[in-house]
Amino acid sequence: MDVRGYVESNAREFIDALKQWLTIPSISADPAYRPDVRRSARWLADHLSGAGFPVAEVWEAPEEGLPAVFAQWPATDPDALTVLVWGHHDVQPVTPLEEWTSPPFEPVEQDGLLLARGASDDKGQVLFHSLGIRAYLAASGEQAPPVTIKLLIEGEEESGSPNFANLLRRERDRLKADVIVITDTTMWAADVPSMCTAMRGLAEAEVTLSGPSRDLHSGSFGGGVPNPLHGMASLIAGLHDADGRVTIPGFYDTVLPLNDEERELLAKLPFDEKQWLGEAGDSQAATGEKGFTTLERIWARPTAEVNGMWGGYTGAGGKTIIPKEAHAKVTFRLVAHQEPDDVTAGFRAYVEANTPEGLTATVTTRGGARPCHSAIDSPAVQAGRRAMQRAFGREVLFTKEGGSGPEADLADIIGAPLVFVAVGLDADRIHAPNERVDLSLLLRGAEVSAYLWEELAAVSADLKHS
Amino acid sequence: MDVRGYVESNAREFIDALKQWLTIPSISADPAYRPDVRRSARWLADHLSGAGFPVAEVWEAPEEGLPAVFAQWPATDPDALTVLVWGHHDVQPVTPLEEWTSPPFEPVEQDGLLLARGASDDKGQVLFHSLGIRAYLAASGEQAPPVTIKLLIEGEEESGSPNFANLLRRERDRLKADVIVITDTTMWAADVPSMCTAMRGLAEAEVTLSGPSRDLHSGSFGGGVPNPLHGMASLIAGLHDADGRVTIPGFYDTVLPLNDEERELLAKLPFDEKQWLGEAGDSQAATGEKGFTTLERIWARPTAEVNGMWGGYTGAGGKTIIPKEAHAKVTFRLVAHQEPDDVTAGFRAYVEANTPEGLTATVTTRGGARPCHSAIDSPAVQAGRRAMQRAFGREVLFTKEGGSGPEADLADIIGAPLVFVAVGLDADRIHAPNERVDLSLLLRGAEVSAYLWEELAAVSADLKHS
Repeated sequence: MDVRGYVESNAREFIDALKQWLTIPSISADPAYRPDVRRSARWLADHLSGAGFPVAEVWEAPEEGLPAVFAQWPATDPDALTVLVWGHHDVQPVTPLEEWTSPPFEPVEQDGLLLARGASDDKGQVLFHSLGIRAYLAASGEQAPPVTIKLLIEGEEESGSPNFANLLRRERDRLKADVIVITDTTMWAADVPSMCTAMRGLAEAEVTLSGPSRDLHSGSFGGGVPNPLHGMASLIAGLHDADGRVTIPGFYDTVLPLNDEERELLAKLPFDEKQWLGEAGDSQAATGEKGFTTLERIWARPTAEVNGMWGGYTGAGGKTIIPKEAHAKVTFRLVAHQEPDDVTAGFRAYVEANTPEGLTATVTTRGGARPCHSAIDSPAVQAGRRAMQRAFGREVLFTKEGGSGPEADLADIIGAPLVFVAVGLDADRIHAPNERVDLSLLLRGAEVSAYLWEELAAVSADLKHS
Repeated sequence: MDVRGYVESNAREFIDALKQWLTIPSISADPAYRPDVRRSARWLADHLSGAGFPVAEVWEAPEEGLPAVFAQWPATDPDALTVLVWGHHDVQPVTPLEEWTSPPFEPVEQDGLLLARGASDDKGQVLFHSLGIRAYLAASGEQAPPVTIKLLIEGEEESGSPNFANLLRRERDRLKADVIVITDTTMWAADVPSMCTAMRGLAEAEVTLSGPSRDLHSGSFGGGVPNPLHGMASLIAGLHDADGRVTIPGFYDTVLPLNDEERELLAKLPFDEKQWLGEAGDSQAATGEKGFTTLERIWARPTAEVNGMWGGYTGAGGKTIIPKEAHAKVTFRLVAHQEPDDVTAGFRAYVEANTPEGLTATVTTRGGARPCHSAIDSPAVQAGRRAMQRAFGREVLFTKEGGSGPEADLADIIGAPLVFVAVGLDADRIHAPNERVDLSLLLRGAEVSAYLWEELAAVSADLKHS
């Protein structure tokens, strides 16, 4: 029996198991659901054990966090490649409940879709690996996978992964891996299979400009002393040049440029800018760094965004003052190989160099996140792409994501390259009412998983040395 | 008996009358004191009647406002010049009461100073005209002043003159005058007599820049759509050029330039910039429009000041959004002959021309105030200056004021030039605890008043035709 045959004949069992898991409301953000997150972890560990994983454990997170699940299925060859698969078993809250057409934890099958909180993000996608591994074994006749497979399924991803980095550090030895498979992203569309290859990182700063020790009467003093709001406007306006580039010295020094092949592949994505602007709160224009497309700007280029700015009188009517101070919150989206600390240091230097005479600047920064990046021509990504192409029977394109998750911590702490393999869709309504998943895509995901171990094993020599 | 002799021999009586008036707590801003404001008006009308004014009336303000006092002493010659003197009889609130060394409405004489709320602002200064007119009559042996004198002493100045313009319009006929004397300002110092010659006007605007219909996630959309806060920063930063000049087209077109004589006279004022910066909330630098001194900048040059600016997330910590909108409140200080409506129209045009692509701007404006200006070589100012110089026996310099009061309404509605004659000092602590006045300066003010009628009469041919 080949992989597809095995997946198809085991589809009902797979779907029923998933539906059972989806009845557990593992909402990590709400303390009332802590027991359910634990039940969800237990359910998964039992399921993986039943599927044949020799090791399947519930791992308590540090600091009384919520448990992750760890499972391991060793290859026969002790020198085989080790692959760590990451996903999560906790889910988003379900408010507003009244917008759900069926109760969020009572899964409903309908027209090939499965509706439930977590169906796509991320229980459905986590579970296809379990079916995929068994499909590989059935089709190959082997007793063990061709690579050592480790699963680490987090329980706090939807509440910001507060203990994840510490968990990784604590269990670094058991989590050792040559490559990390991330299964928590989306494809471009059901008929446009794609793989994510990067996630932007983040650096955060807040700046205060202080002038007089109190608000001054603008009639008595206006025109004679510096106004902190004018200073702030100049600082923020000066952050970008006329081409939309960030002016902080050195900001782009470590930015990995897009290569021609990557730009060509991005351009193949059927992108409807008008529709995208609609999704962007009916924004009226796609603007940004000159020389780049919208997708390149939001995925592959770093940015400086002011998230908040304030100072002086903000109530009704007028008040003729020169305010004592002005404030701004600024975040930077980073791309490989920018370092959050370098970027905030550059911002500090920029503020120091550009603070108008007579004003005093204070800059505070918050911990950031490194960007993730997987080169499209790297052995791991190429292996993942071949697995996707075998399952979907068509060219697999590449996407990136504009925001950050715990993936950077994984890459940093485990010290291995990332491959993003997932079959979710933007249409899955994750985080929203009526979350759903396309069941035929989940089964396709199981096929991808089955091929992935073979494809990774085939390039293990490159990955072992990379 | 000459003017000074008369003033000196009537000083005690004058001071005692003033002390009596100062016991009336005519606080216009506090409704609890409305009966006291009325008592104060009645006291003044009775006093002026007793001093010889043939007409002395309490005028109720429109809209149930607080009463003004009108008094008139006609010249014998029906063709004589008419002079309208403006001041006010209401006073500021007295909080914080605990900082007063003696009760604010129990006047205390101490080392040549008189301490009480209103001693300088403006009861003491209003009353010196009553003594001055009698000193003129005593010294000249005349039965009537050489010009028709009208007094209009307002009762709502300290609460923003809400009904003053309407009162002026209602009584325009009886208030008809060839020149208006304003007695509510200060001199540079006790030993540096000076006259105010201008007050800056005001224009107000508020601008909102709108982008997406909701706050956007800066990871998903950052770098691809315009951020209203960036747009606002650019708009505000662009309001001034590198020389500190306002960039609104036409902004300076009607600005009356400072002439050399005026600049020389301003430069004669003993100005201690370090001390002034201390008073400006310990501002760290005197900055502003290039090519002008600090006094010129705050008195004689128009400005654009942002009084408030806000948008996006302003709470604790960070929030990675592109906010839906940004706001700023802007006021302009105007100098002759700028018109508030022209300036706000110019700002509107500036915003329209400079709103970044993809953002929508909304500008609202509020009623402004015209600037006041009295040319230093005008007949009225020259007459006032001669009166001051005769009383003080030294050169009288010129100052200006950065802010606006009801003076512009007077000049506009009555249609006559303004002369600022007053002997208050910045050291008088007006609006603050322990307000005081230098009694010797009030008596000098009475002398100025006595000479003023003669000096104005002497240039009546010029003023009648001006």
